[in-house]
Amino acid sequence: MSDTPTACILIIGDEILSGRTQDTNIKYMAGRLGQLGIKLKEARVVPDQPEAIVAAVNFCRVLYTYVFTTGGIGPTHDDITTACIARAFGRKVIRHPEAEKKLRAFYKDSLSKGGSDINEARLKMAETPDGAGVTLIENRVTSAPGYRIENVFVMAGIPSIAQAMFEAAVPLLRTGDPVFSGSVDGEVREGDIAADLTALQEKYKNVSLGSYPSVRNDKLCTSIVARSTDKALITAALAEVAEMMRRFGAEPAVTAP
Amino acid sequence: MSDTPTACILIIGDEILSGRTQDTNIKYMAGRLGQLGIKLKEARVVPDQPEAIVAAVNFCRVLYTYVFTTGGIGPTHDDITTACIARAFGRKVIRHPEAEKKLRAFYKDSLSKGGSDINEARLKMAETPDGAGVTLIENRVTSAPGYRIENVFVMAGIPSIAQAMFEAAVPLLRTGDPVFSGSVDGEVREGDIAADLTALQEKYKNVSLGSYPSVRNDKLCTSIVARSTDKALITAALAEVAEMMRRFGAEPAVTAP
Repeated sequence: MSDTPTACILIIGDEILSGRTQDTNIKYMAGRLGQLGIKLKEARVVPDQPEAIVAAVNFCRVLYTYVFTTGGIGPTHDDITTACIARAFGRKVIRHPEAEKKLRAFYKDSLSKGGSDINEARLKMAETPDGAGVTLIENRVTSAPGYRIENVFVMAGIPSIAQAMFEAAVPLLRTGDPVFSGSVDGEVREGDIAADLTALQEKYKNVSLGSYPSVRNDKLCTSIVARSTDKALITAALAEVAEMMRRFGAEPAVTAP
Repeated sequence: MSDTPTACILIIGDEILSGRTQDTNIKYMAGRLGQLGIKLKEARVVPDQPEAIVAAVNFCRVLYTYVFTTGGIGPTHDDITTACIARAFGRKVIRHPEAEKKLRAFYKDSLSKGGSDINEARLKMAETPDGAGVTLIENRVTSAPGYRIENVFVMAGIPSIAQAMFEAAVPLLRTGDPVFSGSVDGEVREGDIAADLTALQEKYKNVSLGSYPSVRNDKLCTSIVARSTDKALITAALAEVAEMMRRFGAEPAVTAP
């Protein structure tokens, strides 16, 4: 498992740190990375400040196989991600010829349909860092592309576009053994089953058992989530968790991996 | 403004990094910190791994006025936050007498109503690091308290409990000038208004203008959010943004600070 690729997500945006916007990009990418066998080790939300962005990018790109950024690549003054990525890599910002071509074609079409024309602000969305190792990432939604620079993937913040870009970037990723998960939900209290659960975790060392309490219809419930690259092990562990919950009087529901 | 208190949020939990759970604690605390005039500089999601938690706590507690952690203080084997916080501070873990008293009282009451009794797993929730500077944070929901150790606030992950603990911790915080925000929403495209918006940002240097595109009923819209400690400045800036949007044919809606 030592060559399992790792990843970090950097959410760039004051709108998340001000509480205005609920981030959903972490959840989407986290789920997909698990399916791809890429271990998400960390996610960070950083403000729209050059020093913070440059520091986070440079810290994370040496630590993890991949870094995925979202946010800050639009046409307005507060879109500073590309300038910061270039600074992090010690490169200049250029207008990427292929990206410019895509944007000009998109807005030529838009204008012919009574929409907006290309302008200097929009051409900012064709900017990337200069030099080798830069690959555009297709944006099927609004044409302004994201890009990969070495192991850093720079994507838009709007969830629908971020998701489209992530999927377009998947073929560029080295994948690992996918991580499967299953769960057992029962009307038991975490504190009642904790000791038995510890024993099961010790028995199933290659399965990660997580315990998540919740309240449903005023009743305390617990979900035990089993995660592993081995489906058979998950199934075996879940069966024992379910049996254990029955001993505590619950009628558990098992979701297979 | 140099003495504006700063903060970092640490979300501790594999369930967020696996994509299973949508975090909502960042958004709640981010909004409240803004109201309290405490500048949220960063939020991180870290896995349930001791090295990652200890490193993040120690990095952030020297950098920011306050660190708020959520997650990992329940009764099960995967609840390792307190052990990690103690390690980060170079202290032992103890059973906190006041916390133990609260828990015993809660479960005595629970048992008398046909519910669960106290046990060793639940008494784990009375653990805190040893030594000075530890203050319990009340949990009005399930009695198991959070705690403050120096400038680090350790809270539960379940959103309703995290919110209750955060509110119980507010009196312990040094606050700053609250940040207000207002917005103008209009059916304009970011790329059309970008140049004018840059000019307005340059005019209103003490207001932070953020531009957030979205799609509503298949139409491209933009929200301009103005943030500042000065309400009058926000109002003036928003009026000019609205006027500018009208020049682009929109009928903007203004939300006052």
